[in-house]
Amino acid sequence: GYSQLPRQVRGLVGAPEWPAIRAMLPDVSGKRVVDLGCGFGWASRWMREQGAASVRGIDLSQNMIARAAEMTQDPAIRYEVADLETLELKEAAFDLVYSALAFHYVRDFDRLTGMLSRALVPGAFLVFTIEHPIYMAAAHPHWLQDGDGRKTWPVSRYFIEGERRTDWYVKDVLKYHRTIGSTLNALIGAGFAIRRVEEFSPTPEQIASAPELAEELERPMMMLVSAQRQAASSLSNSSGG
Amino acid sequence: GYSQLPRQVRGLVGAPEWPAIRAMLPDVSGKRVVDLGCGFGWASRWMREQGAASVRGIDLSQNMIARAAEMTQDPAIRYEVADLETLELKEAAFDLVYSALAFHYVRDFDRLTGMLSRALVPGAFLVFTIEHPIYMAAAHPHWLQDGDGRKTWPVSRYFIEGERRTDWYVKDVLKYHRTIGSTLNALIGAGFAIRRVEEFSPTPEQIASAPELAEELERPMMMLVSAQRQAASSLSNSSGG
Repeated sequence: GYSQLPRQVRGLVGAPEWPAIRAMLPDVSGKRVVDLGCGFGWASRWMREQGAASVRGIDLSQNMIARAAEMTQDPAIRYEVADLETLELKEAAFDLVYSALAFHYVRDFDRLTGMLSRALVPGAFLVFTIEHPIYMAAAHPHWLQDGDGRKTWPVSRYFIEGERRTDWYVKDVLKYHRTIGSTLNALIGAGFAIRRVEEFSPTPEQIASAPELAEELERPMMMLVSAQRQAASSLSNSSGG
Repeated sequence: GYSQLPRQVRGLVGAPEWPAIRAMLPDVSGKRVVDLGCGFGWASRWMREQGAASVRGIDLSQNMIARAAEMTQDPAIRYEVADLETLELKEAAFDLVYSALAFHYVRDFDRLTGMLSRALVPGAFLVFTIEHPIYMAAAHPHWLQDGDGRKTWPVSRYFIEGERRTDWYVKDVLKYHRTIGSTLNALIGAGFAIRRVEEFSPTPEQIASAPELAEELERPMMMLVSAQRQAASSLSNSSGG
């Protein structure tokens, strides 16, 4: 099942995109961090090891939060069950929001980005990963072969945003497709400056040690975004264009 | 041939993405504009009709520049033949750079964005369209059908950046594929703030009057970007993350 995935069992080192995420994260020391969709809490604990002042780990799964809580004695980490669809965080109370592979389950991304913008202090970062819109869009998201036998990823329904249902460990998982434009413009509209956009691709070293990763050179599977909360003065400036 | 395309013959109204571009353009009145890959000069002339102070239209094609020059008497429009790969513009001499469907022919996008950043005054906009990286990536970029008979666009070789050769009116047209991340990060690294990212999709009205456009709901064909030249003080701020 899902909880047996390498990234759940082995933690951050089990996620091939972790080095790319790590390179995008600001220095976390002294920061008040929120980890949205924290799962078993691997990243929450890592943040504290790196010197974060506090971490609030939030996940929809009661099971995962219970397991996460068992894995630490650290009083500066607080885990809780909450739904990102309705979560409200205290205004200007956080220095970093981190989220791995959770936001594509959220229906109302505009609401979420607006709330996160208010929760962060100016200059603070929001660093998150999602399934890539190109990975999620198709009616039937399964590898095809082209005439040369090359693995080819199908794209369809790209501009038809909204529900996507797939079977992934459990039947009928509900995700929400948004275009790349919608995703980035929601952030910009909420007062974030886009600092970096990465699309995870495996390094030659990763492919050498895990040859099945080679197919991830053919398609973008994940999108990684670093966005920085602008000061109010910058916000008014962004209305042009 | 290429010069018979609706967008060449009929000008801006022949390009279905024009309303989306127009919505992204800042007020051009009084602005010193550069139009990169100006073709027959439709956009250059439009900019002047909207009150631009001056327009410099640049294209690699001597034929197109000759035709463009024949179509105006306006002394504030200056057309010239130049290669975007080596073009140098005067520093801090322009208020807007516009470019439609030209940058995906440029090999060295980092050089181009750096040069454009220097040519623009702080606060000025760069608004451009390119073939979407998803449209360009595949080894064989032609529609497929999925099991339900739905038009499906193939993606492969996404992370293998560089040359793409296709036959489009002339044989063996050379384009340069870059990922979405590479494209946006080049702009950010050159000192631009990303203000808006659009991926052209036809409106219901456009599909009603040109039903063949419906297939453009399945795949992203063009990427439209509005980026704003940051002041030097903002540049140092963008190094975080």
